[in-house]
Amino acid sequence: MQDSKPEIMEALSRVGITGLRTLVKTSWNGKEYKFIPEIELTLDLSKKRRGVHMSRLVESITESIEEEVEVKHESLEELERHILERVREKHPYKKAEILMKTQLVVDRETPATKKSTMETHDVFVSVISDNGKFRKRLKVKVVGNSGCPHALKKSDGISHVQRAECFLEVITDYENRIALEDMIVFVESAFPSEVYTLLKVEDEKYVVEKMFERPRFVEDITRDVLNKAKKKFKCCEIRVKTISQESIHRHDVVAEGFCRS
Amino acid sequence: MQDSKPEIMEALSRVGITGLRTLVKTSWNGKEYKFIPEIELTLDLSKKRRGVHMSRLVESITESIEEEVEVKHESLEELERHILERVREKHPYKKAEILMKTQLVVDRETPATKKSTMETHDVFVSVISDNGKFRKRLKVKVVGNSGCPHALKKSDGISHVQRAECFLEVITDYENRIALEDMIVFVESAFPSEVYTLLKVEDEKYVVEKMFERPRFVEDITRDVLNKAKKKFKCCEIRVKTISQESIHRHDVVAEGFCRS
Amino acid sequence: MQDSKPEIMEALSRVGITGLRTLVKTSWNGKEYKFIPEIELTLDLSKKRRGVHMSRLVESITESIEEEVEVKHESLEELERHILERVREKHPYKKAEILMKTQLVVDRETPATKKSTMETHDVFVSVISDNGKFRKRLKVKVVGNSGCPHALKKSDGISHVQRAECFLEVITDYENRIALEDMIVFVESAFPSEVYTLLKVEDEKYVVEKMFERPRFVEDITRDVLNKAKKKFKCCEIRVKTISQESIHRHDVVAEGFCRS
Amino acid sequence: MQDSKPEIMEALSRVGITGLRTLVKTSWNGKEYKFIPEIELTLDLSKKRRGVHMSRLVESITESIEEEVEVKHESLEELERHILERVREKHPYKKAEILMKTQLVVDRETPATKKSTMETHDVFVSVISDNGKFRKRLKVKVVGNSGCPHALKKSDGISHVQRAECFLEVITDYENRIALEDMIVFVESAFPSEVYTLLKVEDEKYVVEKMFERPRFVEDITRDVLNKAKKKFKCCEIRVKTISQESIHRHDVVAEGFCRS
Repeated sequence: MQDSKPEIMEALSRVGITGLRTLVKTSWNGKEYKFIPEIELTLDLSKKRRGVHMSRLVESITESIEEEVEVKHESLEELERHILERVREKHPYKKAEILMKTQLVVDRETPATKKSTMETHDVFVSVISDNGKFRKRLKVKVVGNSGCPHALKKSDGISHVQRAECFLEVITDYENRIALEDMIVFVESAFPSEVYTLLKVEDEKYVVEKMFERPRFVEDITRDVLNKAKKKFKCCEIRVKTISQESIHRHDVVAEGFCRS
Repeated sequence: MQDSKPEIMEALSRVGITGLRTLVKTSWNGKEYKFIPEIELTLDLSKKRRGVHMSRLVESITESIEEEVEVKHESLEELERHILERVREKHPYKKAEILMKTQLVVDRETPATKKSTMETHDVFVSVISDNGKFRKRLKVKVVGNSGCPHALKKSDGISHVQRAECFLEVITDYENRIALEDMIVFVESAFPSEVYTLLKVEDEKYVVEKMFERPRFVEDITRDVLNKAKKKFKCCEIRVKTISQESIHRHDVVAEGFCRS
Repeated sequence: MQDSKPEIMEALSRVGITGLRTLVKTSWNGKEYKFIPEIELTLDLSKKRRGVHMSRLVESITESIEEEVEVKHESLEELERHILERVREKHPYKKAEILMKTQLVVDRETPATKKSTMETHDVFVSVISDNGKFRKRLKVKVVGNSGCPHALKKSDGISHVQRAECFLEVITDYENRIALEDMIVFVESAFPSEVYTLLKVEDEKYVVEKMFERPRFVEDITRDVLNKAKKKFKCCEIRVKTISQESIHRHDVVAEGFCRS
Repeated sequence: MQDSKPEIMEALSRVGITGLRTLVKTSWNGKEYKFIPEIELTLDLSKKRRGVHMSRLVESITESIEEEVEVKHESLEELERHILERVREKHPYKKAEILMKTQLVVDRETPATKKSTMETHDVFVSVISDNGKFRKRLKVKVVGNSGCPHALKKSDGISHVQRAECFLEVITDYENRIALEDMIVFVESAFPSEVYTLLKVEDEKYVVEKMFERPRFVEDITRDVLNKAKKKFKCCEIRVKTISQESIHRHDVVAEGFCRS
């Protein structure tokens, strides 16, 4: 029935499954990682076919994961590419797209007392197959803070600071090696200060003083990330968005920018 | 079928509808208010009846709203009481409960330049009918800020401040007159500073300086609200919860307390 | 300080405020409507200016709302256009964009017993000012259902049905008159059946039978809406997305399409 | 400063951190599991102490996790108990509570074609230390479906079915061995049919037919789970809540019950 001609002949751009959660493994630099991502997998659909065989999409995911016992996937994007290749054996498409939303835990040490701490970030990893060519889209969401340099000047050394979130997204060829960890570092360094899960008294003092040494608007943070990413990641479309949860307002402020490298 | 004996005879405490959104009107102090609340309406169910006639619950809501053309409801709780009374004519229950989640907009003026501004708060209004006796539960969620007095001391006049949210809930007899607006004022005054939608430069300076004059832990804010509410609202169960979106951490901190007045 | 040259000279595309909630009124066809939308208002920012004066954005919103006492806004988009015009008097921009997310309540009657019922939909109304030209983006989210025609065939008259949501978005010139109510009707008619807040036994029977008379994939629903919108709304970019909360899976299925009219 | 006397002397019931995400490992039945839970850890606070030393709570979590290299934690509740014991060495409390929200992936096979599939469930695991005595609270959220037996009768073999979610929670002594997997099985078996991530045509037919063989109200599902849990899990407080995302309405229906075993 899915293969029959539809009543209304209109091509569709993205048809598939979303919100599927399952267990996947990768082995990045020899170390095993486990994730329970939320997965979206969609295909374009010709105006001549009524529907997508959804179970073949799910099967392509589960078979690629089972295969991991023998074939190690270095990264989520490698696993995603295998899934898209497997879909092609089961279902026709011109363009297909897979997205995994998950969390990445990275090791850090606290700034003053040098204690070890683990920091967790939301990451979004996509591979797109378009007319046989593979592209990827990598996105990280990093928590930090912003501070108002204008208020600092007006109020003689004090200002409103607050939690901020920054999203960095790069779209590039599948082969372009870009580590999520590097993306996270660029964003962390653009905030007035990095934030940490664990902070002893001396660490807290360090973080507070850093916040007031260089308070930054969301505009400053966004520009800094755009600039660093442009220099380091070549042949990319780059998008940055910073949102600040203002401590003096009920609403948020936002700054967004794009560039190409 | 709903009236038949169920296979498994087990009484249930809350059966009904949730997430229903509709338009309701009230006329508080002669002024008309319109709300589009999200409504939950549940009844207890005897172990001898298989199910609740859900359409009678919806009908009780829609009929009470239509009736507004003639009968003015002074408040959301008055409307809710009418709905629970109407349900009783259609469906047996010992205990019934209705909740409306909506927003309340209050007028303020900015602290320095005295401009008028409107501030929007989430409010949660419930009426409970228990063995013929009516009780109500009123809750407000107010946005403000917190600041760390400990860091202020360690770092010589600077500290981390951040957005915070405080929930104040009172449970009391239906007849006990308590205004949501008064509840909001108590919470606002417990934060280091009130926050505003509109702030000109002089207002911002005022708010920032106030935040640093009396930085407060979530524990301080929660105690202050508990204390004020206890003195002002008699014969109530009072619950307060404050959550601070730390500007130096990825996680939040929380302080919660209860008392009776 | 916002007017000074930034350290990193990079133009930004969208800088402003988001998540601001306030009370607005419109008078559509002589009837007064009140909304408490969530508002986002952003400007592009030249690479030569460090920041946006956020308080001027808020002021443009509050002043346009106060003005309502004298100037009636026929629609949310008219109010939004006034806000963008007012921003221009206070702040330079090439491109500005305002979005209001809110709810629209429409009157319906139940299909069999003809009782009156109110149905609430999420709506998203934007106006964009781009080099002096105004465009608008209107979006509705409508709840309905989907059903599997393939399972119906395999299982002899029964099938899995489930709740589905469909988003219809049109982007067009500001002057192009398109009613949100019409957009909602197109989506409602593409589902196997409309859904209602109130359904008496005979109405429920009607809705159930309609669902099984023409079960539809998300692909069918999306194509139907695209097709109807294309015929009715001229000179538009049209986007449609349907998501079905499968009753036989933990995940959802999705179908998305675009066209121009 | 946290140890000083507060201005307002009011005891607080729950003070601590929330929304902290980190990597934890367990080894249940000899198999290693990794989780990235969202953690909440709170203590009661005497009216004589101004605040909780939040960094000691974080430290108790990170040290207990580092310790895992040597000490294997069989389960999340064992890890949680160790964390609460470690907190006690650093901070006074009478009552402390830790909650981890995470996902559990369980292996299943499809009902007709017997293919292997992985199913992911939200789980909530708490340990409470109260005056030296440990209790625990285990909760699972399982996705399935509901169907209306009343409509089935009225419409001659067809009915509305839809996705439903059921929460089963048990509160019991720490030592009472209860497996989350068993809790999940009880809920799955109470729905008209289990749902699966992967379903081939024959499996889908099986699931659809099972849904229509025994359509069940949310009341039926809730009672079934209560009843099974009461028989199997001794010395527990048991809470069950089922929510059905009605395919004929915009709103949901809900049934909730409690019992003791």
